[in-house]
Amino acid sequence: MNQHEPLLILASGSPRRRELLSLLNLPFDVRPSDADERTPEDWEPEKIVTELALRKARVVIDDRESEGAIVIGSDTIVVLEGQVLGKPADAEEAAAMLRLLSGRRHQVYTGLACIQHPEHPERTLVGYSRADVTMRPIAETEIAAYVATGEPMDKAGSYAVQGLGAVFVERIEGDYHAIVGLPLALLYTMLARLGVKTLA
Amino acid sequence: MNQHEPLLILASGSPRRRELLSLLNLPFDVRPSDADERTPEDWEPEKIVTELALRKARVVIDDRESEGAIVIGSDTIVVLEGQVLGKPADAEEAAAMLRLLSGRRHQVYTGLACIQHPEHPERTLVGYSRADVTMRPIAETEIAAYVATGEPMDKAGSYAVQGLGAVFVERIEGDYHAIVGLPLALLYTMLARLGVKTLA
Repeated sequence: MNQHEPLLILASGSPRRRELLSLLNLPFDVRPSDADERTPEDWEPEKIVTELALRKARVVIDDRESEGAIVIGSDTIVVLEGQVLGKPADAEEAAAMLRLLSGRRHQVYTGLACIQHPEHPERTLVGYSRADVTMRPIAETEIAAYVATGEPMDKAGSYAVQGLGAVFVERIEGDYHAIVGLPLALLYTMLARLGVKTLA
Repeated sequence: MNQHEPLLILASGSPRRRELLSLLNLPFDVRPSDADERTPEDWEPEKIVTELALRKARVVIDDRESEGAIVIGSDTIVVLEGQVLGKPADAEEAAAMLRLLSGRRHQVYTGLACIQHPEHPERTLVGYSRADVTMRPIAETEIAAYVATGEPMDKAGSYAVQGLGAVFVERIEGDYHAIVGLPLALLYTMLARLGVKTLA
């Protein structure tokens, strides 16, 4: 990468997203976005994650200090039979979500937005990645012990596929990194379209 | 975990396996195994990875210092249309493997063995996990740049799904952690059968 490449800014406070982005070996800054994450009840999962990814990136690109930079916004939700599961409010809600996910297949949607110039539509890219996750049946004692570790508390769906939660995951179909929170293959493609060469 | 639980020993020098095992929050030692990894030409992938996982674990459990411990052996291979792809010998071979994988779906097999008492068959557990990985078409310039990073050199199939190689991976079907090198859900089940309580 030469020094004329635009600065990358990750509009997220998530340590998982930061870790994944660092796999691309490109320098980047982190500026967590305080975008409003409320959405209308009737939005489909694809719309929720793409709109929230855009909102998060827009809040940061509107900042004067971000001029010329590429801002990356991302949003992840877990969906079980049409019901959106967000982050749990407390341990009790985390346990309830894990009971819902136990022995079933759910979907993880992650929206991704890369914005370079908000006024130029061709410099605003947005998309999403979806993966199916099948969990084995989880015993009540396992749920209690897992919730007690604290791992579920800041995760959509109350589990971390990249953590101890992996022991509940029987199978995934789709993009693993979208489940963790940042679809790397999609991001690579978007950055290439904006002229950022990650490889070569 | 109480202090009467048996010691876990990882019979592998792989930093990826070490990192994955540490997700279980159990104390463990690492003792890389120097088992013979040659196998007959006519073995099926399932047989190669289960036998090599057993061999690796047996070399370590035969050591007197391992008495009473649970030794974990694991072996991963990449298979493309029946052809086994190991670790590349050099940059040229790495590039050739990536050309083979480009735009196609391949399989990753990881064998797992947990041995506590080699003379007690019920204390020797072995199994494997398989996943399908679909790669997008990869350009020659991308292959050259990726090989130049050095990442492919110690990886079966010449890529790391948990590294920059992620940008080539379109889709996976199966156990993600088996692709990285240690099937955590299977390991958790085996450890539970040997009386090790990871959760609860």
